[in-house]
Amino acid sequence: MTAQSDYAALVQRGLSLDLTRGKPSPRQLDLSDALLGLPTSHKAADGTDGRNYGNLQGLPELREIFAPLVQVPAGQLVVGGNSSLTLMHDTIVHALLSKVPGAERRWVEEPEITFLCPVPGYDRHFTICERLGIKMTAVPMDAGGPDMDVVERLVAADPTIKGIWCVPKYSNPSGVTYSDETVRRLAAMPTAAPDFRIMWDNAYAVHHLTDTPDELADLLALAAEHGNADRVFVYASTSKVTYAGSGVSFFGSSPANVEWFLANTAKQSIGPDKLNQLRHVEFLRDAAGVTAHMRRHAALIGPKFELVDKVLTERLGGLATWTSPKGGYFISLEVPHAAEVVARAKAAGIALTPAGATHPYGQDPGDDTIRIAPTFPELDELEQAIEGLAVCVRVVADERG
Amino acid sequence: MTAQSDYAALVQRGLSLDLTRGKPSPRQLDLSDALLGLPTSHKAADGTDGRNYGNLQGLPELREIFAPLVQVPAGQLVVGGNSSLTLMHDTIVHALLSKVPGAERRWVEEPEITFLCPVPGYDRHFTICERLGIKMTAVPMDAGGPDMDVVERLVAADPTIKGIWCVPKYSNPSGVTYSDETVRRLAAMPTAAPDFRIMWDNAYAVHHLTDTPDELADLLALAAEHGNADRVFVYASTSKVTYAGSGVSFFGSSPANVEWFLANTAKQSIGPDKLNQLRHVEFLRDAAGVTAHMRRHAALIGPKFELVDKVLTERLGGLATWTSPKGGYFISLEVPHAAEVVARAKAAGIALTPAGATHPYGQDPGDDTIRIAPTFPELDELEQAIEGLAVCVRVVADERG
Repeated sequence: MTAQSDYAALVQRGLSLDLTRGKPSPRQLDLSDALLGLPTSHKAADGTDGRNYGNLQGLPELREIFAPLVQVPAGQLVVGGNSSLTLMHDTIVHALLSKVPGAERRWVEEPEITFLCPVPGYDRHFTICERLGIKMTAVPMDAGGPDMDVVERLVAADPTIKGIWCVPKYSNPSGVTYSDETVRRLAAMPTAAPDFRIMWDNAYAVHHLTDTPDELADLLALAAEHGNADRVFVYASTSKVTYAGSGVSFFGSSPANVEWFLANTAKQSIGPDKLNQLRHVEFLRDAAGVTAHMRRHAALIGPKFELVDKVLTERLGGLATWTSPKGGYFISLEVPHAAEVVARAKAAGIALTPAGATHPYGQDPGDDTIRIAPTFPELDELEQAIEGLAVCVRVVADERG
Repeated sequence: MTAQSDYAALVQRGLSLDLTRGKPSPRQLDLSDALLGLPTSHKAADGTDGRNYGNLQGLPELREIFAPLVQVPAGQLVVGGNSSLTLMHDTIVHALLSKVPGAERRWVEEPEITFLCPVPGYDRHFTICERLGIKMTAVPMDAGGPDMDVVERLVAADPTIKGIWCVPKYSNPSGVTYSDETVRRLAAMPTAAPDFRIMWDNAYAVHHLTDTPDELADLLALAAEHGNADRVFVYASTSKVTYAGSGVSFFGSSPANVEWFLANTAKQSIGPDKLNQLRHVEFLRDAAGVTAHMRRHAALIGPKFELVDKVLTERLGGLATWTSPKGGYFISLEVPHAAEVVARAKAAGIALTPAGATHPYGQDPGDDTIRIAPTFPELDELEQAIEGLAVCVRVVADERG
């Protein structure tokens, strides 16, 4: 059989499969269904009534649970709503509209602002920049994180560069965890902008797939050691720990940044949803409880990552390369003519993240990155989808020679 | 006994009472405690899994319940997080950073922006303006709402006036409900700014204290009739229906504004907490369910408003004036030397909202408005606090002659 006839047969099957977004599966969500009956009490540990207004920073007992997991002292951690994306968006909005510590002026008064974007990266980071009028400069990633020679050269020379997006652990989509050396250089590097910020989106801090988890160096502590305490904005959430739509999020930073953040948030909010915080405290109990819970997730999604690896090896060995991450939510497939592969898959009923989405402005100059999100479908559907994707890769390779 | 000796005796008692904020009392919060065990199912009416990402606009079944209560068609209503203040703050941020329908440019590009602030008004509205660099111009309130002669004259002449803050029903703090004529004129008036917005904070839409509730004209419909459909931003929440910190909020507007709002929100959020929406749907059921629930609140707080009225009548008849609202959360007390009265009360252990908080920049030119928030304390503490406040008013009147 030729690649063409395989593809014709694939289209004939009329599939309808979706590999686009990193969503937990229903079975993963089921793991947290005890939350639906919680909290059993509305009283916080200090006796506060969790039903009423107030407590902008979030309940200490919840901050204590996550402090060691996200590498931020509990006193410097803020609990947000159901989306760390909102915290990222809003901290940049705050920086645009009120001076961050160390800034000479509000960012909105700067003639131009640029953020560095290690690629491949997370499309929703890029969307925030586009929406807020922030220019993006792509920086290549390697096995240890962003190419630090490039990063150091750019930030030292250009004061319009105010930030860099990082998913430092099990990175979206490549699965890379930043090396100790990368983290140290990020903490220590001189920057032309006095108000430079590292957007440390530690989305997959506890999302391991193996018993030998990657270790990430403590950027916030290292930055403080190097006299750059205010450089780091840490973000995390339980969106892929408990419920994707009804979790809690975290912002962590230096004392000065936290004070700045809370002063801005005080104008915007009457306080967070503390009952959802109490729900999470009762359900997760402590850091060990989170770790144990994450093992149950790994038991469900680990086999999905293995399946993708197996099918790709069988069907595309020698024809493409892909990542085999030890955690996180994505596999990054590198093939020539990625956009055409995605289009052929779509025509065959297999929805993939648009080619280019992993790059600023949706432009992947090499046209060779496809992000695979294997967590949502169950194994049988996932196998059909990856088998189908392999057929698409082969037919494009065949036609393009 | 003289006023002075009464005051000395009051200070001697060493009270510690708080009349500052419009918080529901624990007994009011108890009314919603069935929420703690909800939802019984995570499935939305259309079968969507409420635990996962998505549904930016919010569940239709919840929007249907509140649409008639907040006078916005369900299709033009958006459900937000736990705070309508966040929706207000964020719509203004959106307008600063991306053009609202009808605007010539983003508000951040305008040399100057002004909002009209009917006074007395809500301090958190003013705080948003201060934080975002928006100038404020006070407009006097009368028994039918803001003085519309003044409003019409200002907005017709000055294109830098981009908005007006309104709490149209049981207004904070005066309890006034805008007359039909006021609402019609707001809907119809010509404005120099093509992107003028009415911030319609309908915080007390269903918060009646009597069996003859005030009726509020439908501003959104009237504005559309007058060709000004995009003029109106409606806000509401269940902060004083269910839980102050764990309710749901609403934004309603014209189709063009809702599209604009959701396009901006899509960059900021992975979707709202739909489980909290399902919780509210199960608990409140329908609009009649909300109305019935609000009667239980009225049964608890109505006697508090009556008590304040009784004590003020007994102690301050002829010496001061105050409002007797038919709903909402506040009583507005007008006395000479308000700031001094508040200071004397503080010295006697009775915390009141700072004098001036009801005015932009905290400056009450007449120094005669004190906002009383009677809902949180129970009756015995409330009586002590108002008796004490009356002593303070009398001692200041006595000293100042």
